[in-house]
Amino acid sequence: MTEHPLGSSQAQSATNSSHLADQPAQQVIEITVNLDDATPELLGHTIDKLLELGALDVWATPIVMKKSRPAHQLSLLCAPQDRDRLAIALLTETGAIGLRYHTRDRITLDRVIHHAPSPLGQIPIKVASLNNLPLSAKPEHDTLAKLAKQHNMPLNRVQQIANAAANELLSTLTSDSSNGGDPS
Amino acid sequence: MTEHPLGSSQAQSATNSSHLADQPAQQVIEITVNLDDATPELLGHTIDKLLELGALDVWATPIVMKKSRPAHQLSLLCAPQDRDRLAIALLTETGAIGLRYHTRDRITLDRVIHHAPSPLGQIPIKVASLNNLPLSAKPEHDTLAKLAKQHNMPLNRVQQIANAAANELLSTLTSDSSNGGDPS
Amino acid sequence: MTEHPLGSSQAQSATNSSHLADQPAQQVIEITVNLDDATPELLGHTIDKLLELGALDVWATPIVMKKSRPAHQLSLLCAPQDRDRLAIALLTETGAIGLRYHTRDRITLDRVIHHAPSPLGQIPIKVASLNNLPLSAKPEHDTLAKLAKQHNMPLNRVQQIANAAANELLSTLTSDSSNGGDPS
Amino acid sequence: MTEHPLGSSQAQSATNSSHLADQPAQQVIEITVNLDDATPELLGHTIDKLLELGALDVWATPIVMKKSRPAHQLSLLCAPQDRDRLAIALLTETGAIGLRYHTRDRITLDRVIHHAPSPLGQIPIKVASLNNLPLSAKPEHDTLAKLAKQHNMPLNRVQQIANAAANELLSTLTSDSSNGGDPS
Amino acid sequence: MTEHPLGSSQAQSATNSSHLADQPAQQVIEITVNLDDATPELLGHTIDKLLELGALDVWATPIVMKKSRPAHQLSLLCAPQDRDRLAIALLTETGAIGLRYHTRDRITLDRVIHHAPSPLGQIPIKVASLNNLPLSAKPEHDTLAKLAKQHNMPLNRVQQIANAAANELLSTLTSDSSNGGDPS
Amino acid sequence: MTEHPLGSSQAQSATNSSHLADQPAQQVIEITVNLDDATPELLGHTIDKLLELGALDVWATPIVMKKSRPAHQLSLLCAPQDRDRLAIALLTETGAIGLRYHTRDRITLDRVIHHAPSPLGQIPIKVASLNNLPLSAKPEHDTLAKLAKQHNMPLNRVQQIANAAANELLSTLTSDSSNGGDPS
Repeated sequence: MTEHPLGSSQAQSATNSSHLADQPAQQVIEITVNLDDATPELLGHTIDKLLELGALDVWATPIVMKKSRPAHQLSLLCAPQDRDRLAIALLTETGAIGLRYHTRDRITLDRVIHHAPSPLGQIPIKVASLNNLPLSAKPEHDTLAKLAKQHNMPLNRVQQIANAAANELLSTLTSDSSNGGDPS
Repeated sequence: MTEHPLGSSQAQSATNSSHLADQPAQQVIEITVNLDDATPELLGHTIDKLLELGALDVWATPIVMKKSRPAHQLSLLCAPQDRDRLAIALLTETGAIGLRYHTRDRITLDRVIHHAPSPLGQIPIKVASLNNLPLSAKPEHDTLAKLAKQHNMPLNRVQQIANAAANELLSTLTSDSSNGGDPS
Repeated sequence: MTEHPLGSSQAQSATNSSHLADQPAQQVIEITVNLDDATPELLGHTIDKLLELGALDVWATPIVMKKSRPAHQLSLLCAPQDRDRLAIALLTETGAIGLRYHTRDRITLDRVIHHAPSPLGQIPIKVASLNNLPLSAKPEHDTLAKLAKQHNMPLNRVQQIANAAANELLSTLTSDSSNGGDPS
Repeated sequence: MTEHPLGSSQAQSATNSSHLADQPAQQVIEITVNLDDATPELLGHTIDKLLELGALDVWATPIVMKKSRPAHQLSLLCAPQDRDRLAIALLTETGAIGLRYHTRDRITLDRVIHHAPSPLGQIPIKVASLNNLPLSAKPEHDTLAKLAKQHNMPLNRVQQIANAAANELLSTLTSDSSNGGDPS
Repeated sequence: MTEHPLGSSQAQSATNSSHLADQPAQQVIEITVNLDDATPELLGHTIDKLLELGALDVWATPIVMKKSRPAHQLSLLCAPQDRDRLAIALLTETGAIGLRYHTRDRITLDRVIHHAPSPLGQIPIKVASLNNLPLSAKPEHDTLAKLAKQHNMPLNRVQQIANAAANELLSTLTSDSSNGGDPS
Repeated sequence: MTEHPLGSSQAQSATNSSHLADQPAQQVIEITVNLDDATPELLGHTIDKLLELGALDVWATPIVMKKSRPAHQLSLLCAPQDRDRLAIALLTETGAIGLRYHTRDRITLDRVIHHAPSPLGQIPIKVASLNNLPLSAKPEHDTLAKLAKQHNMPLNRVQQIANAAANELLSTLTSDSSNGGDPS
């Protein structure tokens, strides 16, 4: 590994691979509605509400509609079995009279939470792997926000400290995995 | 109804229901094109033109394209039988050399126009129902804009007056519907 | 008042007036920074943090920067005496190396909180006045969000009920104020 | 002119000049308000209304406010003597309780409307000059929109025809002006 | 052709046609990811990288995510056989842990590059045709950018000159094609 | 320093300070134009051109103008002595017929480039200081982009490695500076 430090060979292997073999697609539903009669206060509230109700993701996109209307499109992703429930919630919360949806395939990397040491203590790090090769390591945002508050430090600085820990972890993991079955 | 005023029980029933039984999905086509060589003047004109030609909705979304290009995506919804006609109009109007489309399922609530009294006279109110339960009541915007002009009042104020009338109407309707077959 | 119901004469008077006599401008500072190296997680956190620290308003605007960078501009408004403190907080939280600011004049209408009856109970309504004429009446959003949760109703419906109460209040207030010194 | 066709020398002269001598700045007021309780329908209506009332320009910018609110900022430019009148109209139309403004310097090129021949008839072309050198020539959009309707042609095609006429006009004008006092 | 100059009859024919007969749809994949932990620097870099790797188009759309996060959605179009390769590159470059995709139908007009004379020399013009009728003619942007640099002229002016040449070309082509097989 | 690792005390000191004493404001000019007749290709080109000509920053903001026009505002920052030159360039490049500008105060932190060791070699790190206290340390993006290309690694991964190096550097610097005049 001395000649390929830092997992560059792993990243390359993963990148050069043309298969997403270990990541079978799941189906998710994407529901969308264009809203020209909802206030931003209502939109913000609805984003939170739909997430509480089980949407996988919810977001608003600025759009321009007829009659010079500066509007937003509201979208959500959900599991197929939650489609009707969330569609009704979206209609009910916003007062919209219609919506549209379609099925999309979704690929999610395998994720494992590790804990890495840092000057701020152990930090939970989400490691995402593709075809069993660790690809990225990212500290959990909520923990960082708490640490920033607790230590009265800028989040910006906490992120950098935690990313250093995540980097160390990822280097170790990719070095290990490249050694394959021979850890000695 | 004294213990469940204002249709809250109806809204809950509708929301708690996990079926969109009375609202069979129709199929609509969503056509999209990314434009890096159209002026805003052309985009505004095209939005109007496509609506005149029968599109169900047309909107523009700001996007960032390659080479630091601040661009817009133009999208339209239409009935399946209008797809080719509107696709050609979109290509012709904008000078684009390609577009993409896909089929989406669309659910539209049942809508009935009622007329509700207000200090500004009778106002047309669109009542949308889900599974035969009135869910929302919304004044028709075009009428409000005319009333604002005619009375020289801010639209903001006209909206509030009309929404009070719509609220009254919806309370009555949901109270009626909850009494079910027993109006006595 | 029969011939000028609903405050239309008031709204007109206010609108026709060309003076903002009773609303002397205060000075506020608008601080702005263009950020091409901050994550959305950091931006969202910073918006909350700056408001906690006393900014009058904080918002992000999507912008397109050089090298096809889809970025955001972060802006805040604050009182002149808070300028340095908030500027330092903005630099510290985001890791930005510079910012710019300028002084703007700000006009704020006189506001009084009334409480209006509604089927959901008393609702706090903010009434804004221009030159002693009530111009608009708006229910407090936070109370509506709580009511929506408490009654398990869509915020959309709660807004409509509360706006009906605000409308009633405003009609009464403008009717009173137009009677001037003769309340009998 | 053979070695510097097409006004390139003019454009260069103008560009290389470091003075805006013939274009003294006027002062304009820029008024801004962040709106988290206005619907797109209201915003579209307000843009039209403020232009009718004499604003020089009105536009909306998508912004992200606290509590995940996808909102818009509404801005207008006006002459200093229209400031109070338009500020009141903005507050009244939107129900906002405050706004901010500041003075900006504005430079406007000298503009003259020429009429240029084209296969679609005479077309009004706005020629803008800097320090007496014609810099750009642009067909009037409203005329093009009418021609597109009248000839049942795509605006896109009408724009290209009209721009060819404007190009011809500009080439002639810059050629003339570069010959200076010697038209023989 | 004297009574229908400029291809207006062609444009009409094409527009009036309700078939896209000569433009069979190809299938393209649209891949999308919502990113709340990527910096604008990383997004700009990724747009370039994915285009280098063979994506047909790549763009970013500003969105508003939960917790007041001002974020961007990154999207790409690609041929079906490139899907896995580009999906992996997108995950690897951005550190995202998931993405979604779906198949869209794509229609592309037939394009031929012509060369048209102009005062700036021969300019490559892309002519797009629908059902064998030339619909639009657009100068190649990259050539215009080079000409602007080479002649030290504003791109704006170069565009106008090139569009005049494209207009001339399109008029000739539509005149020819309307004469059909009888050029005498 | 054991009880206040990582510069948290420094960050706090800097944050708690209410003075920007060592950062006297410079004056910069912000020039803005709303464009409804420029294509994205022209906007992208103009952003690059204005930066080449010496603008300190250039960016585009999506806006909604009258007549449903989805447009962009183009803005630049420059030194006062470059105002006229860049204003003319902006008018000339875009064909706009007017623009507006105002003076803003700008604060820039003191910056020093350090070089920090990393598994990818020495990396230039920009350290920004406020009142002589190092506040943030950020790797130079252009170097990271080159390293990503050279090592065929995702930029995302290179950023993390470089940020770990920057974090290490900042910890050392803040530890040193807190020891003040007593390095022994």
